[in-house]
Amino acid sequence: MNKEIEGKMEKIVSWAKRRGFIYPQDEIYGGLNAIYNFGPYGALLKNKLREEFLNQWVKKQPNIFAIDSAIITKKETLQASGHEAGFTDPLVECKKCHSRFRPDKLEKSNICPDCGGELSGAREFNLMFRSFLGPVEDENNKIYLRPENAQGMFSSFGYIADTMRVKLPFGIAQVGKCFRNEITARQFIFRLREFEISEIEYFVEPATATKEYEQWIDKWEKYILSFGLSKENLKRRVHQKKELAHYSRGTTDIEFKYPFGWGELAGIANRGDFDLRQHEKNSGQEMKLFIQETGKKITPYVIEPTLSLERLMLAILCEAYSESDGNDKRAKGERVLKIKPKYAPITVAIFPLVKKPELVKIARQIFQDLSLDYFVEYDESGSIGRRYRRQDEIGTPFCLTVDFDSLDDNCVTIRERDTMKQERVSRAELMSYIQK
Amino acid sequence: MNKEIEGKMEKIVSWAKRRGFIYPQDEIYGGLNAIYNFGPYGALLKNKLREEFLNQWVKKQPNIFAIDSAIITKKETLQASGHEAGFTDPLVECKKCHSRFRPDKLEKSNICPDCGGELSGAREFNLMFRSFLGPVEDENNKIYLRPENAQGMFSSFGYIADTMRVKLPFGIAQVGKCFRNEITARQFIFRLREFEISEIEYFVEPATATKEYEQWIDKWEKYILSFGLSKENLKRRVHQKKELAHYSRGTTDIEFKYPFGWGELAGIANRGDFDLRQHEKNSGQEMKLFIQETGKKITPYVIEPTLSLERLMLAILCEAYSESDGNDKRAKGERVLKIKPKYAPITVAIFPLVKKPELVKIARQIFQDLSLDYFVEYDESGSIGRRYRRQDEIGTPFCLTVDFDSLDDNCVTIRERDTMKQERVSRAELMSYIQK
Repeated sequence: MNKEIEGKMEKIVSWAKRRGFIYPQDEIYGGLNAIYNFGPYGALLKNKLREEFLNQWVKKQPNIFAIDSAIITKKETLQASGHEAGFTDPLVECKKCHSRFRPDKLEKSNICPDCGGELSGAREFNLMFRSFLGPVEDENNKIYLRPENAQGMFSSFGYIADTMRVKLPFGIAQVGKCFRNEITARQFIFRLREFEISEIEYFVEPATATKEYEQWIDKWEKYILSFGLSKENLKRRVHQKKELAHYSRGTTDIEFKYPFGWGELAGIANRGDFDLRQHEKNSGQEMKLFIQETGKKITPYVIEPTLSLERLMLAILCEAYSESDGNDKRAKGERVLKIKPKYAPITVAIFPLVKKPELVKIARQIFQDLSLDYFVEYDESGSIGRRYRRQDEIGTPFCLTVDFDSLDDNCVTIRERDTMKQERVSRAELMSYIQK
Repeated sequence: MNKEIEGKMEKIVSWAKRRGFIYPQDEIYGGLNAIYNFGPYGALLKNKLREEFLNQWVKKQPNIFAIDSAIITKKETLQASGHEAGFTDPLVECKKCHSRFRPDKLEKSNICPDCGGELSGAREFNLMFRSFLGPVEDENNKIYLRPENAQGMFSSFGYIADTMRVKLPFGIAQVGKCFRNEITARQFIFRLREFEISEIEYFVEPATATKEYEQWIDKWEKYILSFGLSKENLKRRVHQKKELAHYSRGTTDIEFKYPFGWGELAGIANRGDFDLRQHEKNSGQEMKLFIQETGKKITPYVIEPTLSLERLMLAILCEAYSESDGNDKRAKGERVLKIKPKYAPITVAIFPLVKKPELVKIARQIFQDLSLDYFVEYDESGSIGRRYRRQDEIGTPFCLTVDFDSLDDNCVTIRERDTMKQERVSRAELMSYIQK
């Protein structure tokens, strides 16, 4: 990584922590590698990303159904899916100190970098977190934390088909946490051990699968662009035959140009009927659908668009984070998060010009009115200029100031984040101004 | 449990599964004890409960901040909190087959109910799920799945205090999944091993803690009633001194009258300064706040209102589930979920009277219009009566029917769930009718 790139990521990591977006879990005890918390603004942003997923893909789609399946997963499910046997990374172990390493990350292939001891040959290490259900820690009670949402949706296929009386095509949607015990977790929230995925399993007639797959690539890319990412920072990467996952008949990644390079942000896969057939074989439960028109039962194919919430958040932050060059009425180095207003954690900030009871009273009333519809922040401390800069840094599109004129004209000054333009607006028109 | 009570719970469990609310995780492989999935309607309901928590306690409160902390928790955090040493149940083990049991659940205290072998004396069994971070499974890499949200909020105290420039009182709010390896998990979604809690840690000046505690009991009860639970099904239970948890200076449960009896739905605790002091001692990081008025640093007290999402959901369903006695224009035994319209998974169902293209077209247009604001279901199959009954069962407050008159008068028939009253409303007025 060259210095400039490192510089941008470092700046974002530091800004995200300082400004209440993202900080390490259990930091007071030294933190945990690749596990992060979301602070007040990060939590609101993440929640808006979840909400948008539900709005676009469940609320507006008559044939896509949300579910919320459990994280703790039965080992049989992940045996059927191939995860127990195949979701692994190769590792070598030091025969002396028993530390383990990825062989491709070692400088010297036969000597332990920790203690200089001899290393074993590479063995496969499973990336799933495991634990035990109930008090007895044996093979029978072993469970896994799900490494992906998909299997909970496949094992629910028959349940959803029955209860929702579905016809093809139909989808199951889920946003939820997944866990992977990554050996080389890195790059801030790009590769996490605990992360959140939004995804759809869209079941189709096999004959239409290729066409649906192509259409989903277009739909998914358009959806991703709607978060305010620019076209030149997105590209598609079609997987070569030889790199396809064992279940896949076709995979296209949507990559984003992060400061550290192009990285997978989202993916669309044509999983064929691999998963349903595996679960049918392993569980003995039929995973077919009766097609009224032909009078026959078929195993549907599935198209799977996925989008990582943290990678989306990181892409949005990288795209929106900016520092003034000093030529835009801002001082050089002043930070503005130019996030699309819809996804700004705080939509409106409200300031009394000074901390006088009569101004505070009005400002607090406006807080109450607007907070019925928006996330609003009230701030009465420091100069107005400092308060503007604080809101610029967290991407708040509108700042309202209540001043002494407000007492007479019942108007407030609205200042817009990107243009820094100030306008006088009457309290009665506030809501419609912000909506516009 | 007597038969009638068992009957009501059995009915709700069966209805919740049949109607897309709640079903066992990995059921095709026999399920997992006390771990459930939420189907299309259950997932929407749960999401509305989460949303309401954020709306009431974060959006509308200028001094309460949401966070989203990680599930995977460092062992040091749970050592400081007392969970590693004390979050246990006593268990006896069979010396022959190594099965383990809660001694208070055994009929014969010295003989294994599985194999007749001799039982050991009781030993403490920790209820936290544990796993390992990274490839080496040793004590250094042990991690826990959080058994409560609270510790992630306490360990974030300093971070939030700094980044949000707080003054007392202020709160940290979180809704998220927790995990407890319960030995005697039971009663459907009442005692789960994977569950979701919404909670606030509200930090106050020690001198005001008792008053704040009393006020939070009132606020929290009012909040819980707002979900449509009736007053006679709620009661407060003040913990006796001797049953208080080690961290608590006062705890009040809010209990709901479930079909199986009164059970804890929510709680309010005055945790004093126990947690902050423990973390300060164990981490070496200061957990105090500077009070401008006095010029002194203090360790705040914390008032903690909590509410289990699944127990709230179960309470709402128990309260709303009804079967007609045949005296209300419905056939005897017909089910209606009389849930408060705001929390109904589906707000509006839209039916074309028959499956004719001209009616289907209008119905689909209405779906598109309304689904911008509401979760809407489109249904064209079966008789109108059957479609009404399906919606009654999942609690949909409004059903709209598009008939042949709609082609001329641009009106639809709205049928209201509880009164079964039908009204003719113009398409232009639909939105305002539903809002009202």
